[in-house]
Order: sequence, then structure tokens, then C-alpha cells
Amino acid sequence: MLAEDDQGGARVARSDHYTVGIDFGSLSGRAVVVRVSDGVELGSAVHDYAHGVLDTRLADGGETLPPDWALQVPSDYVDVLSNAVPEAVRAAGIDPSQVVGLATDFTACTVLPVLADGTPLCELPDYAERPHAYVKLWKHHAAQPQADRINELAHERGESWIGRYGGMISSEWEYAKGLQLLEEDPELYARADLFVEAADWIIWQLTGVYVRNACTAGYKGIYQDGRYPDREFLAALNPEFAGFAEEKLAGEIGQLGDAAGELNERGAELTGLPVGIAVAVGNVDAHVTAPAARATEPGQMVAIMGTSTCHVMNHDELVEVPGMCGVVDGGIVAGSWGYEAGQSGVGDIFGWFTRTSVPAAYAEAAQAAGESVHEHLTRLAAEQQVGEHGLVALDWHSGNRSVLVDHQLSGVVVGLTLSTKPEDVYRALLEATAFGTRVIVETFRDSGVPVEEFVVAGGLAKNALLMQIYADVTRLPLSIIDSEQGPALGSAIHAAVAAGVYPDVPTAAKSMGKVRKDVFVPDDGRAQAYDAVFEQYLALHDHFGRDTKTMRRLKDIRRSAATREESES
Amino acid sequence: MLAEDDQGGARVARSDHYTVGIDFGSLSGRAVVVRVSDGVELGSAVHDYAHGVLDTRLADGGETLPPDWALQVPSDYVDVLSNAVPEAVRAAGIDPSQVVGLATDFTACTVLPVLADGTPLCELPDYAERPHAYVKLWKHHAAQPQADRINELAHERGESWIGRYGGMISSEWEYAKGLQLLEEDPELYARADLFVEAADWIIWQLTGVYVRNACTAGYKGIYQDGRYPDREFLAALNPEFAGFAEEKLAGEIGQLGDAAGELNERGAELTGLPVGIAVAVGNVDAHVTAPAARATEPGQMVAIMGTSTCHVMNHDELVEVPGMCGVVDGGIVAGSWGYEAGQSGVGDIFGWFTRTSVPAAYAEAAQAAGESVHEHLTRLAAEQQVGEHGLVALDWHSGNRSVLVDHQLSGVVVGLTLSTKPEDVYRALLEATAFGTRVIVETFRDSGVPVEEFVVAGGLAKNALLMQIYADVTRLPLSIIDSEQGPALGSAIHAAVAAGVYPDVPTAAKSMGKVRKDVFVPDDGRAQAYDAVFEQYLALHDHFGRDTKTMRRLKDIRRSAATREESES
Repeated sequence: MLAEDDQGGARVARSDHYTVGIDFGSLSGRAVVVRVSDGVELGSAVHDYAHGVLDTRLADGGETLPPDWALQVPSDYVDVLSNAVPEAVRAAGIDPSQVVGLATDFTACTVLPVLADGTPLCELPDYAERPHAYVKLWKHHAAQPQADRINELAHERGESWIGRYGGMISSEWEYAKGLQLLEEDPELYARADLFVEAADWIIWQLTGVYVRNACTAGYKGIYQDGRYPDREFLAALNPEFAGFAEEKLAGEIGQLGDAAGELNERGAELTGLPVGIAVAVGNVDAHVTAPAARATEPGQMVAIMGTSTCHVMNHDELVEVPGMCGVVDGGIVAGSWGYEAGQSGVGDIFGWFTRTSVPAAYAEAAQAAGESVHEHLTRLAAEQQVGEHGLVALDWHSGNRSVLVDHQLSGVVVGLTLSTKPEDVYRALLEATAFGTRVIVETFRDSGVPVEEFVVAGGLAKNALLMQIYADVTRLPLSIIDSEQGPALGSAIHAAVAAGVYPDVPTAAKSMGKVRKDVFVPDDGRAQAYDAVFEQYLALHDHFGRDTKTMRRLKDIRRSAATREESES
Repeated sequence: MLAEDDQGGARVARSDHYTVGIDFGSLSGRAVVVRVSDGVELGSAVHDYAHGVLDTRLADGGETLPPDWALQVPSDYVDVLSNAVPEAVRAAGIDPSQVVGLATDFTACTVLPVLADGTPLCELPDYAERPHAYVKLWKHHAAQPQADRINELAHERGESWIGRYGGMISSEWEYAKGLQLLEEDPELYARADLFVEAADWIIWQLTGVYVRNACTAGYKGIYQDGRYPDREFLAALNPEFAGFAEEKLAGEIGQLGDAAGELNERGAELTGLPVGIAVAVGNVDAHVTAPAARATEPGQMVAIMGTSTCHVMNHDELVEVPGMCGVVDGGIVAGSWGYEAGQSGVGDIFGWFTRTSVPAAYAEAAQAAGESVHEHLTRLAAEQQVGEHGLVALDWHSGNRSVLVDHQLSGVVVGLTLSTKPEDVYRALLEATAFGTRVIVETFRDSGVPVEEFVVAGGLAKNALLMQIYADVTRLPLSIIDSEQGPALGSAIHAAVAAGVYPDVPTAAKSMGKVRKDVFVPDDGRAQAYDAVFEQYLALHDHFGRDTKTMRRLKDIRRSAATREESES
């Protein structure tokens, strides 16, 4: 169809050609139409997942889910294709025939058990009431016991791959979630032909082809140096688990920016886009954002700051960083080692605090000033000197992804007095996430992966106080992505590469990526004052994160209470 | 006037004779008229202090006070005499001539600098804008540096009295507050002829006589075995402080239940009571409550639970309990060793949380259900199993009085997640105060002062959930005082003894005291479940209270921030 544009095997970046990027988040999916010549975003649309996150009970109002579960319904993702994509194209005012490629990015590790043809088990009527038949969202944290066993065994056996994951495999990832499925619902485990990343499942729906993207295969599937953990290791976890990698994770590996296939009839029907256009290999929301922010060089750490934060960064060499989420060859950009770290809760924590812990008077004052409660608290907090509130908090309300990799950890506030005000705690929570970032940056540096620039994407980039705190706490210049929809733009860049418009992702990023450089720079006085508070943060970090089992015991006690309640009722 | 009732030197407990007890609290004073024959309370009245607590600036809107200050205005106390007393007598429907005695109790250590005639320095026009001229309320915590030096020196010199105070002198007490006065405003220190407890100052206003009550002299004035700390010790703190005890604290010691003097003309004019009736030696709100709850025997720990909690208990022998507030001969009842311990923040913490940390939806739901926010949170929290919220808190928002004696400590919540609800934190705070009590009870037991019964007085006795938590956490039966105004009733009992109606306080307590026995008893299942949570509380308690300086550093940082702010503005 577009063969007339080919010049010596590569397409040119025509200004009347577009790609569509689709970003699947935790609560909604967003499609954006982007011009391939310069990355201008012409139109976008969002579609909310009808079922959202199932963390208390299944959609049908049935069984109560245990603590730490988080499920989703796969048809919600398909609804994004059929709603958001046509709407974005309409909003862009272009003709669908001008779209030359499509790419997606997804939350990860978000996984589901499916039949050989891709049918999710939860769509089989017999299994509709079985929690394990559903998508386990990235923040499903109920497989910690399995993760603990995986880690213990990996260290015991000296598995070579464990160092590639900072010494710890997360309960969020494929093996812990798969093992939980096996051990809690063996019938469903047996019935599942494959255990697939939603990132790849959605591409399968569009192309009819199942390709495992190199990013999740590496970061979440422990695919390193061309292979998965071996049968002996898996059998030692549970004899029935021996074939998990070979059988349930099997699939061709696709490199990021490559085409997984072409849009098939069904995909075209869903999206309204032309049959046959390139569909890129699946990808992950954070990783795809690096090129969107034109930050694919070594030394540029990209932080995608939303409900949680994901840090991604390229480096030429392979080193092992303690507590990093992972290092994967081609995990961000083909040909570089991609490093990933993360903070499990960031905007989530601010949102939780604003929702549950701020009295009516603040809500009223915010309304009177024409502000959101977030804006109101931020304005009050911005008036404070560093350290004035006397608090230090740990930002582990959803556990700690880096560098402790422990989802049994929980949030802490220390220093409360009867004079403590909501804006004090709010600011302490903002700072806690900045301190968490500093721990990550320093750990990378100490391991030989220096961070020179901190590039922020995601919704939190809008909070100037938060950004300044990050600059002051980390003593790094902050650049800010110049797009409201970084991941979707990043996907659109990958779509352009998959469609052959650009030879590779870094080249495409130069034309299509958007960033504002050094928007926030550290203030030396505040940076020094923060050093003193950070010292206390670090003391708490190590006490609760390394030295004691307090938080783990609290989770145990909580589980015992839940059991007691059941036995009483 | 009442001489016709005398029989062999002792009056009989006539059913048409009354005493007036006046309880001076942190925000108001309450007078109650009590029948001497059976302790029935006939009428009462409350008068709020016009100036309340000055903790941000002086009454005249002038100078901003530094953190941790808490001042009061002495004329507010006099206004209680002239307002609440006549009103209580009117409410009781008796004739003032039927009142045979008067007694008071006060917060402590609440102290003020005065001239030799009792005039408070803050009432001298020259000093009205000098913060140090005012009453330092018990919860003025700005003298911690001085307290630190007192403790260090006492241990260095092996002072015999330090063991009587659990090894630590509080920043709340006379020496720390006096030394702060000397060092921060030496001119005022020199001008003060005396540094007196408000408990004794108010008796001075009523009788014209300055008598130091044995209770505050012992607990707050380090008066042990008939003497104060010596000049050498005081001079080593600061040469100018050498004469502090001899000169500023000097005064005849009066035993509890004795008459300090008779109501003089001015006292009669203020109160509307007859000139010449007995006025008891001053006393302290907590200590005076023990006889009101008929709990003057060894093994009965009385907890006065309000904004803070004070624990008092008699024992026949003198032992040293680590971290107790003090042990004083005749400190509660003449002839017994009176032990005191305390928790700096209890109801205060619940109130702070309810005021600052509960969203509008809860306030609205409470209103719809016809409940206070406290009641609403309590009802929601009561539905939970022990440990279900997954939290553990430290109840140190106002510091820790026992057994750590450190007002630089602060509050902590551990275990927060994005599912944490306001009622979860509320319950964790209730429990934290119960754990704090358990630490005290166990420390007493381990030191040879066994606690067999926990007798609760004060406003928090009304919260059945809180009471049950205390019974479950401490595994003690809880008895509850059967009076809404325990301290005032206790004062009225002391007034009856001072007036000669009863030979001693325990005898008067048998007729006039009120208690409901074993209202809450421990449940074994819950007690066991709490053991696991308490273990975590104790780990935090020792970590933050003994092993690390985290909280002290946070206070330092806070003070530096305040300095930085001043230098900038």
C-alpha cells in the first residue's frame, strides 16, 4: 500500500504519514496519533477499563479476594482498541489510510493464563468465578511467599541470572505469579497452555501472532543470554513447575522496534485502521518512554512518575547493580544494556493520603481557592523550609521495588507531633519518594552506572514543588518530557521504526521525541539541608528494609487476623 | 462556726455538710460540691481559661513562641475561683455556710515566677511581653537541653535521688524549667523571689499562706528524705543556679489532706464561701484521683486517662522502677510510698488525629449517624480483629514520659499501605497507648511493684473499645471510677479530711470514693493476638527510644529549619 514511499528499502518520514501509539495503563488505555516526520501529536483518546482493578472481589460481585490481590479483565483491553483508536484518529482529523504503523505499550508484569489460541481462561464460562483465571496486574502482590522461595533457591544454587535482577526476583514477575497459580489452583494451571504478558497478548489480538517482546521476556521472564531458568531449578521449586518456562512461557522473541506482524482482519475491524500495516513488537510503558523523551543515551536516567515510578536507563556495559529490577540486553533499545529500577508507590501514595487523610477544612479551602486538594497541599507545603515539619517517611506503602525488592514492606511516618499538619505529612511523603529515588541513583553510581541527568515523564512532572525537591535531593538537573502522553508517543516512535520509516529507535527519537532540558536545577542550600534528612531516611530504610522483620511480621499478623475472622464467621 | 459538730476533736460526717473540690485542668477549671457523708456530688460548674494555652504567641498577639513552648496566664486560674465556685454552689442548691472545707488540685509541673508576695511576674507591666514571665504549663517541653544536662550531671555525680525518678529528670519539671528561665532570661530569674507550683500558688491566693505540697515538692521538686539537691550540684549546672532550691523553691512542706490554712477574706470574696473554713494543702489532679476511685491500696494502679495519662499507685516499700516519673513518701497518701508514671499523649493524640487526618466523608457519615467523629471511628474500628489493620504505632506525639522519659521522641506509624483507612490508624493509635501502658505495668512488676488491678478515671473511660483494648493488652481487670469528675471529687475528699471530718484520706475515700469494679476483663484470644503485635511495638519502642537518635535528630533538623527561616526573613 505504501510501497511507493520506499527508497532503497527504507521509507521516508513523510509529513502526511502517521503512526498510532497505544498506552495501556492501570486504569485506562490511551491512543495517540503522531506525525512520523516530527512527532507532533495530532489527536488522542482515552478509554477507561470497565472493570478497573479488581482488588476486593471479582467483577461478578462474588468471592472476596485475599489481601494484596489485584486482577484485571482482558476484554477491557480490547475495548480500548475498538474505542480509543478510532476516536483518536477522528480527533486527529486524518484519514485512517494515512496510518502506516501501530505499536502498544503495557503495564508489566501483567500476565494472564490463556489457551493455545489466546483465549483467556477467565472467558471460559467454567472459570469465570475463579480468581486465578484473570489477569494478574503488575501490582498483584500476593505471590510473595513464592518469590521468597525463588530467591532463596536461586541464591542457594548460585543461579547465574540472579545477579541480573539485583539479587532478587520480584513477587510481581512471571515466576512468582505462575507458581502461585500452580499451587493455589493446579487445575487452572494445567488448563493454561500459555502464561502470557498482556503486552504480548494485545499484539496477538491485533496480528494473530504470538511474539514475546525482548523487554518483558528479559525483565519479567528471566530470559538471559538466550535462555530461561532451567528445568532443574523450576522442579526444585515444585516438581509440577518443571516445565513452566518451556511450556507456558515459550514463544519467539521479538526485538523492540521490530514488527511483530501486520494488522490482521480482526485487528483492522477493531481499530478501524488498514489491514496490513506494521504492528510493532509489544513493549512496556516505562521503557517505551525513553525515546519519547529523547533519552536513550548512557547517563540519562528516565523516570516515569505516575502512580508508581519506573526508572530506565541505557548503558554500554553489563554490570550488576544491587536491587535493580533488572538488566536486559536490548531491554530498552536494541543493542544497549537496558537497566531498570522502580518505586512501587509514588503518586499512588500522594493520592491515598489526599483521599484518606485530609480533613474537610482543607477540601473546602482548596475549593474556595479554585485548587485541587493536591494543589492546595502542595502550595502550603511549598512555603516550608527543608526539615521544618520534623518528619521523615518511608515511601513503601506498596512495598519497595528498588533497591530492596520486598513487597512485604510498608509505609512509615516518623516524627509526628500534635502540631503536625496535613501539609507536613504530604510534603514528607513527596520527600520520601525523592529519597527513594536518591537511593536508586546512588546505588547505580556506586555500581559503575553513573547518572548525569534525570529525565522525568509522567503525570507528576507537572508538580513543580515535587520536581524541585527531586532536583535538590538528588543534586541532579531535571529535564522534563515535552509531551502529555509520553508512553503513547514512545509507542508511536516504535511504530514508525516497525513501519520502516526510521532505521532504529534512537534515530526516530531524534525526530519524534520531545524534551525540555534542565527545567529544575538543584539549590545548594536546600540540597545540604536535605542531606541531613536523607541520613535519617537511610537509617530507617536500612532498619526496616534490611535489619528487622517488623513489617513482614505485621503482614503475617494481618493474614492471621483474616484467617481468624473467617473461622469465626 | 462548725464547732458544735466537733466530737472529741473530730467532726462527724454530717449529711448536711459539704466540701468543694476544684480541679484545675489544662484548659479549664471545674468546681464540684460534694456531700461529706457519702460523696454524692450535688452540683458542679466549669470555667474555661480565657487565654487557654499559649503555644504559638503571647496573649497580646506579640512575639512568636519557639517550638515546644506552652504558657498560661495565672489570672485565668483566679477567674475559676470567682466563677465556677459560686456557680457550683448555686447548682448544688445549698447554702454556702454548709461548706466546711475547700481543696484544689492542679496540673503539674505547672510553675510560675512570682514576687515574695505571690504576684506573678507576668502581671508586672514591665514584663507582660516577656514569655518567661508567664506560667510554664506542664507540657512546656522547651527545656529539654537543660533536662539533658541535669540528667547527665546527676549520673556523673551519682546523685542518690536520681534513682527515685527512674533515672531521669523530666524537662517538664521545676529544675529544667527554672534553669531555662535563668539561662534565657536572667533578669527575670533574678527578679523572681520564688518559683512556685500553680498548685501551691492557688492555695496562696485563697489563704494568704505559701505551703509547698508534699506531692509536687517530691515529684517535681526533687525533695527527697527531707532535702533538695545540694548547692554543689546546682552550681555545677550553672554557677548562677546554685541557690535555686534554697531561694526560689523554699517553703514549708505540707502533707496531703492537711489544712494549709483557712479561707481568708480575699478567698472568701472570690469564692463566696465562708471565711475561716479549712483549705487543704495543694495537690495534683492525678494523685488526688486515687482516693476518688477508692484505690489507695498497693496493687491498685490508677490511670487518669484524658489528653495524657497519669498512673499513680501506692506501695508499702521503696524500690526504684526504671523510668518511673517518681516515688515520693506521702506523694499520694500520707504514710505510703506513692509511685507515679505517665504517658505524655493519649486523648490528645486521638483528638489530633480526628481533627487533622479524617476526611470529609467520615465527618458526614458520623453526622448522619448522630455520632461524633470519635464515636464513628471507634465504631468502625471496633469491627476489626486484632492485627487486621496491619499497623503498629508509637504513641509519642508529645514525647514519652514513662519509661523512657524523653520529650524529644515523636509519633510513628508503621505498616501503612494504600488500603489503610482512617479507622485503621485510629485503632492503631488507641492500641499504641495501651501498649505504652503495658510497658509501664510490666516495668513496675519487674521491679517488684506488682499491679493487680487497673483503675481508670478520666474522660477516656467512656470509650468501651479503648477500655477493652487496655484489658486485652495488659491482661488486667479494669475498674472504672464512678464519677464524671474524679479529680474534683478527690479534692473534695481531701477537703473533708482537712476540715477534720475524717481522720485520714483512705478512710474518707471509703465513704466518699466511687468505683465500678471489673467492668472490663481480658479476653484470652484477643490477649494472645495482641502479644504478637506488642512484640513489634516493643521492638519499635526500643529502637526509637533507646537504640537510635533518629527522633532527636529530626527535632534538631526542625530547629535548624526554624533558624534558617528567621535568618532569611
